[in-house]
Amino acid sequence: MGLLYSEPYQVPFYETDVNHNMKLPQLLSLALQVSGRHSLKLGVSDEAIFEQYGLVWVITDYHLDIIRLPRYAEKIRIETEAISYNRLFCYRNFYIYGEDGDKIMTIFSVFVLMDFETRKVHPVVEDIVSVYESEKIKKAIRGPRYKALENASDTLYHVRYFDLDMNGHVNNSKYLEWMFEVVDFDFLKGHVPKTIDLKYVKEIHYGSDIVSRVETFDKTTKHEITADGAVHAQAIIEWQEKE
Amino acid sequence: MGLLYSEPYQVPFYETDVNHNMKLPQLLSLALQVSGRHSLKLGVSDEAIFEQYGLVWVITDYHLDIIRLPRYAEKIRIETEAISYNRLFCYRNFYIYGEDGDKIMTIFSVFVLMDFETRKVHPVVEDIVSVYESEKIKKAIRGPRYKALENASDTLYHVRYFDLDMNGHVNNSKYLEWMFEVVDFDFLKGHVPKTIDLKYVKEIHYGSDIVSRVETFDKTTKHEITADGAVHAQAIIEWQEKE
Repeated sequence: MGLLYSEPYQVPFYETDVNHNMKLPQLLSLALQVSGRHSLKLGVSDEAIFEQYGLVWVITDYHLDIIRLPRYAEKIRIETEAISYNRLFCYRNFYIYGEDGDKIMTIFSVFVLMDFETRKVHPVVEDIVSVYESEKIKKAIRGPRYKALENASDTLYHVRYFDLDMNGHVNNSKYLEWMFEVVDFDFLKGHVPKTIDLKYVKEIHYGSDIVSRVETFDKTTKHEITADGAVHAQAIIEWQEKE
Repeated sequence: MGLLYSEPYQVPFYETDVNHNMKLPQLLSLALQVSGRHSLKLGVSDEAIFEQYGLVWVITDYHLDIIRLPRYAEKIRIETEAISYNRLFCYRNFYIYGEDGDKIMTIFSVFVLMDFETRKVHPVVEDIVSVYESEKIKKAIRGPRYKALENASDTLYHVRYFDLDMNGHVNNSKYLEWMFEVVDFDFLKGHVPKTIDLKYVKEIHYGSDIVSRVETFDKTTKHEITADGAVHAQAIIEWQEKE
């Protein structure tokens, strides 16, 4: 187990969906921000590792367990710890606590260090990760096997100016938006995710036409985001009826 | 002049655009949130006036003067005051201060109270606005005259699930996104807005197909957001080269 770091947050109106819950893409962005401040506090900020090593952190996988989502105006707490790492991957958990103090979500995430110039994964640097006091492990923690979708329905999206972040790539949180967007609106109004597995495969750039593909099996949806015929992200979402 | 209220804010990565500036739609959402907390502090929160009067605040107009936009990771301060009001309209300013303490933006905004049930504008209620200590005036402060666009180029957008807020209406900040989106990408990479006039005319609901219309005159763009042939928002943006 690594050092714990946490921050309070109150869910604003403009991050609230029609179900009066916090929009999940916003919550993932916020969690990433909190991990950034965790790193800053420990002296290994994004800027520092970029300047010293030319490396940037990239998220490759998420697994979310959701009891319930944060609600409008709720005062939540986001706690995070870098739990373990191996030669290539770093594993970090986020725990979301509701205003009543109960743990309402766990977000497991996989990070890699990427060489900014070559865009290739770089082996974990001990001097960067040692400060988190996380455990070094031999094994890789495997996510689910994502099978190629065979009978998906396809919806075309264009990458927009405000989808891009500072690096000119589509912001991570947009992929989940495109995935939700192709689920039936009335279903979305009656359900919230229970578990989400999400895998980022390739970056997406401005000008790309992307296809959001979905297959629906009762309370499970399977997703692919493709561009030019290649898969850029995959997800499996299990849904539960909203409270 | 009304009572001043201010809050600090640090611009996160996921609210930063390709120019390393804060995304303007996010800044407008944030400003609205700050004014909400101003009201809360004075005992006239959104919830309180909804419960007591069945009224909600709605923004009808913006005028922005921009020296520069907040930058990535910059620690800014957002100051606001309810400056004046007349029988129907309330006028509020937001001042954005950069990390160096200089005023970098002024956002003038026009609010009305809307009856939540009838969706009609309600005359200003003295008991609600008196706490802001703003000046009562007779005259209405007029924005620019927005002429109908005649040679606009049109781009179709679909309203998305995450575009909606808690009330099931398209969030105010989305309109500006649709307006920016139809401006040439290379132009956006080299320019930032200098002034923006923005007028909200009608609400937009889920399922609507909207058209973002634009006419370009050198360093000025004129915009309309239409749905089913009716104008829902209008804007005039004057651009300046980025620093």
